[in-house]
Amino acid sequence: MKYVDEAEVLRRLEELGSKIAKQVLKGEKPKLEIPLRTLSNTIWDEERGLLLLGPKKAVREFFDLKEAKKFMQTILMLSLLIRARREGDYPTIRDLYYTGKHTITYVDHLGRSMREETWDDQRESNSVLQDIEVMTGLLREHMGVMHDAKGKIVGNIIVRSKGYEIDCSRMGSGAYAIPPNPDRLEIVKVNAEYVLVVEKDAIFERLNEEEYWRRENCILITGKGQPDRSTRRMVRRLWEEYGLPVYILTDADSYGFYIYSVYKSGSIALSYESERLATPGARFIGVTVSDIEKYKIPKNYIIKATDMDIKRAKELMRYPWFKSKAWQKELKLFLDRGEKVEIEALSGHGFKFLSHTYLPEKIKKGLWIE
Amino acid sequence: MKYVDEAEVLRRLEELGSKIAKQVLKGEKPKLEIPLRTLSNTIWDEERGLLLLGPKKAVREFFDLKEAKKFMQTILMLSLLIRARREGDYPTIRDLYYTGKHTITYVDHLGRSMREETWDDQRESNSVLQDIEVMTGLLREHMGVMHDAKGKIVGNIIVRSKGYEIDCSRMGSGAYAIPPNPDRLEIVKVNAEYVLVVEKDAIFERLNEEEYWRRENCILITGKGQPDRSTRRMVRRLWEEYGLPVYILTDADSYGFYIYSVYKSGSIALSYESERLATPGARFIGVTVSDIEKYKIPKNYIIKATDMDIKRAKELMRYPWFKSKAWQKELKLFLDRGEKVEIEALSGHGFKFLSHTYLPEKIKKGLWIE
Repeated sequence: MKYVDEAEVLRRLEELGSKIAKQVLKGEKPKLEIPLRTLSNTIWDEERGLLLLGPKKAVREFFDLKEAKKFMQTILMLSLLIRARREGDYPTIRDLYYTGKHTITYVDHLGRSMREETWDDQRESNSVLQDIEVMTGLLREHMGVMHDAKGKIVGNIIVRSKGYEIDCSRMGSGAYAIPPNPDRLEIVKVNAEYVLVVEKDAIFERLNEEEYWRRENCILITGKGQPDRSTRRMVRRLWEEYGLPVYILTDADSYGFYIYSVYKSGSIALSYESERLATPGARFIGVTVSDIEKYKIPKNYIIKATDMDIKRAKELMRYPWFKSKAWQKELKLFLDRGEKVEIEALSGHGFKFLSHTYLPEKIKKGLWIE
Repeated sequence: MKYVDEAEVLRRLEELGSKIAKQVLKGEKPKLEIPLRTLSNTIWDEERGLLLLGPKKAVREFFDLKEAKKFMQTILMLSLLIRARREGDYPTIRDLYYTGKHTITYVDHLGRSMREETWDDQRESNSVLQDIEVMTGLLREHMGVMHDAKGKIVGNIIVRSKGYEIDCSRMGSGAYAIPPNPDRLEIVKVNAEYVLVVEKDAIFERLNEEEYWRRENCILITGKGQPDRSTRRMVRRLWEEYGLPVYILTDADSYGFYIYSVYKSGSIALSYESERLATPGARFIGVTVSDIEKYKIPKNYIIKATDMDIKRAKELMRYPWFKSKAWQKELKLFLDRGEKVEIEALSGHGFKFLSHTYLPEKIKKGLWIE
């Protein structure tokens, strides 16, 4: 999915609105066809290595008592989005919730005066926002909806945003904070051999401070734990548009493995965005469970896995996107040992071990798994 | 406290080490004098508006069985810090924990073979790191210790880091991610009338996207909720070195008020750093509880305060740094109403209300409290 310009965004939103208006004017029953965002409509596309939204759709009818409120909410959200685009505003999802929230008073068929909230909870407004995303093929970022942006990037890459050239190799000890909508970043120049995605911000800071990316000629990114949409999109673009290998570095535990899979294949909750956010070519560079033996990680650096770790590792083993031989072996080893280690455990071999030995060796010798 | 150069950092750390060595060589009992980091030794300096560490000190003796382990831990941490500085490494606090973690085996007075871990938990290693900070007057940032850095900055300010000039008005839709140690940033040029600190990242993104800072000629910063050390330090420097007014924008709830007080006066846990991190001149611009009436925030945007909100508000009322008339009034109102509102509730008056009316009006008319 490519960059969509402002005019096109507004056009698609208005088109959806006029479709409804036309139904009403023609005396038809107003209805919306919405692709289903459920687990049962989430498909694992093996060939492409992506979690995708399936073909199932639901019909939301205005004249169905069970659907009427949700129908109204959808149209309300649509009107807010159109208003924001027309007026050049950049609301957050929380702003949209508040702006749309009001009380509708009406008289029911028994003559009673009734009151109904448009929505009581942000989950309701978020849900119809997602419906509009899948109906229009637009993402909230296209629609100028703002959200927290956790990602940071440094390295040999120059981007352009709002006309400014930003050279991510000239950020000093800081970094470029990835904007909420990286699709509007123009990538001007990339001079790097690979992308290293680091789960932990503190490790990112350390590698940045010693300019790992300059020595290794790479791009360094962190999404600070579970990555947000914009970090994932940025990684995807570097892989897709520049063919850069992408390596993911996390702790050796179920949470770390899951984070890798979100970068690589997408998540069930956001499967409708995988095509844009996932990086099927991403490789897991470590820390693997077998690294515990291979790199002689001392016994007292090893942490006992929690019940939750074990439960999640069992889930991961069943996911089709963890079915490779290498991953099944790692997950089995994890369950057998019942042990996890953190990236920082490698510091037992000295502070420089991670950046001067572990990472360069693994990359040079192709010791990643996927 | 000013910027401390690398040589001075190493000198101070080595000085502490050689003091112990000299005690040993002279046949004295090795001991350390450590300023107490406890609530009982936290002082509210009314005149300066700061939470400070008091004068109490504790003596940690090697030949005291209760203290021996902690003494050893302190020296172990000191040696790790010195090694990192000598070799130009930038470990995280987690790295320091792992690097120092090992098993000491010894034979006790009954001839039994014993094993003891240097430390079992990062709380132990963090605690002696803090002891070294207060003993040397150095902060972990000075010692090159890395940590998560949450802050972002945009606006009319140019900084220099590692020789690169970074113009924070040329970040486009992104931002400059504040480095872990902002003391090593040289502030080259500031052309702004004030600093606006925003609690919520999504609001920061929104204000940045519409270039509020350009229109208002200010600097925009977010610490994403409870601010980290580097964000606080950056705010402090802009206030101290450039005399810029600092306005804090949070939700109208106990958590938001507390965040304001951390920026302004410091926190009890880090009182030994207030002199460097706190901004006594910081002003609370909103959202205040009285804004609910003043700005006619609709009833259905108002959230019921939780028991925790109420409990915390009562605590805040008792803190000396909330004793001003304005704050007592606000906190009383909060407790009376039992209600809170979020920044985004202002969007009920339109998406532009916050940035075009609320903020500029409050700043122009001096409608902050402190």
